[in-house]
Amino acid sequence: MKLSHIEHIGIAVNDLNEAIPYYENILGLKCYSVEEVKDQKVKTAFFKIGQTKLELLESTSPEGPIAKFIEKRGQGIHHIAFAVDGIENALSEAKEKGVSLIDQKPRKGAEGLDIAFLHPKSTFGVLTEFCEDNNKS
Amino acid sequence: MKLSHIEHIGIAVNDLNEAIPYYENILGLKCYSVEEVKDQKVKTAFFKIGQTKLELLESTSPEGPIAKFIEKRGQGIHHIAFAVDGIENALSEAKEKGVSLIDQKPRKGAEGLDIAFLHPKSTFGVLTEFCEDNNKS
Repeated sequence: MKLSHIEHIGIAVNDLNEAIPYYENILGLKCYSVEEVKDQKVKTAFFKIGQTKLELLESTSPEGPIAKFIEKRGQGIHHIAFAVDGIENALSEAKEKGVSLIDQKPRKGAEGLDIAFLHPKSTFGVLTEFCEDNNKS
Repeated sequence: MKLSHIEHIGIAVNDLNEAIPYYENILGLKCYSVEEVKDQKVKTAFFKIGQTKLELLESTSPEGPIAKFIEKRGQGIHHIAFAVDGIENALSEAKEKGVSLIDQKPRKGAEGLDIAFLHPKSTFGVLTEFCEDNNKS
């Protein structure tokens, strides 16, 4: 498969309104978008640094995956997302080679990207996302 | 401060020899270096993807920081390292703004970079490293 760069790093936080000022005022990054992704029960805030985005994730429900992650492990780095050329083929290849997939097929994620997650039990504990921007003209 | 890109993502693993084939044979990345960093009690393996490196970390001692991380949280993403212009000034600025520093001054890390860590209690749970390459001619 062809991974080109780290598309984003997902970071679980309790409260976007507390975390955004740290990224802006101390690290000097600029929050350019806040977006709710309802089916993941999260509100996201995006920053860009070089080729990569930082995606802060606040749960909108105590039953959401980010709330459960924080309950178990505390705030912190949640996942890595790789930009991939040909996400369906990449998923097929990973599955053929024995990787467990959380998403058998791509679905729509934040910013309209096609995304799919691999299971961390197959990836040495790293929750791993593939994503591809198929909205480009 | 001026952060230019994600220099690397540190990932704690039990055994480099088990994890490297996943990154090479499934994700299609190439391990270009394996290096021991004795004062951190780790053996590291590096991969490059776009502007960013993945740094796999295996503890060489049950008392090392990576062994303790894995004991508490399991294998997975350990830290994010930002490439910074002017690491000493960046540390001073972070400290002035109330961030707790693990390293008050830069020290030498893997690949001869000047590195310093911020404490995750000040960074919303993200173990954060600054690094600067002062070996460039």
